[in-house]
Amino acid sequence: MQVPFKLTILGSSSATPTSERYPTAQVLNVLGRFFLIDCGEGTQQQLRRNRINYSKIDHICISHLHGDHFFGLIGLISTFILQGRRSALHIYAHSELQRYIKFQLDFLQLDQTAFPLIFHPLNFKRPQVIVENKKLRVSSFPLKHRIACCGFLFEELPREANIIKEKIAQYNIPIREIKNIKAGAEFITENGQVIPNAELTIPAPKPRSYAYCSDTAYNEAMIDTIRGVDLLYHEATFAQQDTALAAATFHSTGVQAAQIAKAAEAKKLLIGHFSARYKTPAEILRQARDIFPATEAVKDNASYLVE
Amino acid sequence: MQVPFKLTILGSSSATPTSERYPTAQVLNVLGRFFLIDCGEGTQQQLRRNRINYSKIDHICISHLHGDHFFGLIGLISTFILQGRRSALHIYAHSELQRYIKFQLDFLQLDQTAFPLIFHPLNFKRPQVIVENKKLRVSSFPLKHRIACCGFLFEELPREANIIKEKIAQYNIPIREIKNIKAGAEFITENGQVIPNAELTIPAPKPRSYAYCSDTAYNEAMIDTIRGVDLLYHEATFAQQDTALAAATFHSTGVQAAQIAKAAEAKKLLIGHFSARYKTPAEILRQARDIFPATEAVKDNASYLVE
Repeated sequence: MQVPFKLTILGSSSATPTSERYPTAQVLNVLGRFFLIDCGEGTQQQLRRNRINYSKIDHICISHLHGDHFFGLIGLISTFILQGRRSALHIYAHSELQRYIKFQLDFLQLDQTAFPLIFHPLNFKRPQVIVENKKLRVSSFPLKHRIACCGFLFEELPREANIIKEKIAQYNIPIREIKNIKAGAEFITENGQVIPNAELTIPAPKPRSYAYCSDTAYNEAMIDTIRGVDLLYHEATFAQQDTALAAATFHSTGVQAAQIAKAAEAKKLLIGHFSARYKTPAEILRQARDIFPATEAVKDNASYLVE
Repeated sequence: MQVPFKLTILGSSSATPTSERYPTAQVLNVLGRFFLIDCGEGTQQQLRRNRINYSKIDHICISHLHGDHFFGLIGLISTFILQGRRSALHIYAHSELQRYIKFQLDFLQLDQTAFPLIFHPLNFKRPQVIVENKKLRVSSFPLKHRIACCGFLFEELPREANIIKEKIAQYNIPIREIKNIKAGAEFITENGQVIPNAELTIPAPKPRSYAYCSDTAYNEAMIDTIRGVDLLYHEATFAQQDTALAAATFHSTGVQAAQIAKAAEAKKLLIGHFSARYKTPAEILRQARDIFPATEAVKDNASYLVE
């Protein structure tokens, strides 16, 4: 069975929420652990609505310090404290965020000592690996916004092939050989017969990937970093006729999001962070699809599975 | 036509939000101006959902500095700034709130100079009038909680009677007499006939009132302040079987809320701030109604009109 790699949209408005859209927050379920990406006001309520177990969130990535991307963080941390959390919480953000959270915890006289709260400062100059384990690598990379801002790339790491159990008995394969075969080796039987690796193994599923790019102006510099990504979320605050406004505010149009997706050879594009000036994102979506047909406009509480 | 005096519930959860209930916030429409009472996380979104024009909010009353009662304030103030607000905003709260908001505005590098942001420190020792004009008086009064906490009482002031226009012509009443008649005087015609005031006027509608009591333990000290109130909101965090827990956390049960409503001779009681441990407030409501039948359990986005 394929293990999950699923994105859930908790909020997708731009600066101010609407009755339909919370401020920005997303949660990526990677192999059963949850990465929270941005944390706008109302995130903890949206987590409940989507039945996401708070205790499975160990990592929070904050793209930048505009309020619509992190005003929900103090409420979530307060709830962690009230719930008696014990496990470490890692926050990847601008180094200043630590001062902001510490001020609030002191102000609220909340005792946050029962669990380690670990801040990891982001690098806004160049791409950087921020989490890496046997299964997954998470990197931050610079976006182009009014203030220091990072995107995030989540990549499953290549897994070993699965050995076919019946073949172990059939060729009497010793246990010490299995590791090599999983890594791609052929097998030579006692009487010298060479069994090609392809006969012994089922290839591992292709590693999946997700990239998050919000908030950002049109930014070709990041294309190499996200090249070939399975799923790309790119902000699309404005429609094409408001391109000048997008440039002035360091945001993107749907067309620009689509151009990035196309240039980066993404498999699929999600757009969001729509300005409240548009009643619906229909026009932004249409303009994006003209350039990159595999585009969807996200909705709050919708999930997108990377297959 | 009766002018509005209407309460809208924006949030009614206790410490942490649920998928059904936002943290505490309410808005009272008094004669077309809006008083925001507490401002939990998500308040600005709930204001939009209830189509309440942000620019008609001039007064925000914050009962106490637990996060579930004011985490939405910085987001709302940020939005006021983004929207180019010009009119003064008055905030009635613990004096420390000013330091908290100022820190955040500085941190966010938000320029809040286009409108006056005026903090009024609450008195946690005794009742105090915080707003008074010709039509309305708003008072704060101490509640009994773990930290300094105030309730708020909104009282329409008695209005003059309306003079019946036909009577002015019928008795040839000079303009200089109208003020006295509205204030209750009889009228003596040129030929000495005494016209009783009741024949000349229609009494003004009875002044309406609303009292907000959250968060608080059972607190008889406030009964005199809220006596005879038309509508009373009183927190009811716990069910009767958890009375000890209510006492330990300085909260109330539904029964205690009802006892206060009964002792204060309130016309109607609303209960809320329910602990997330109860799936529904049905039992808390039943226990309260045994003591004070005119009780309702509030729902988010519901409005309650004081007739």
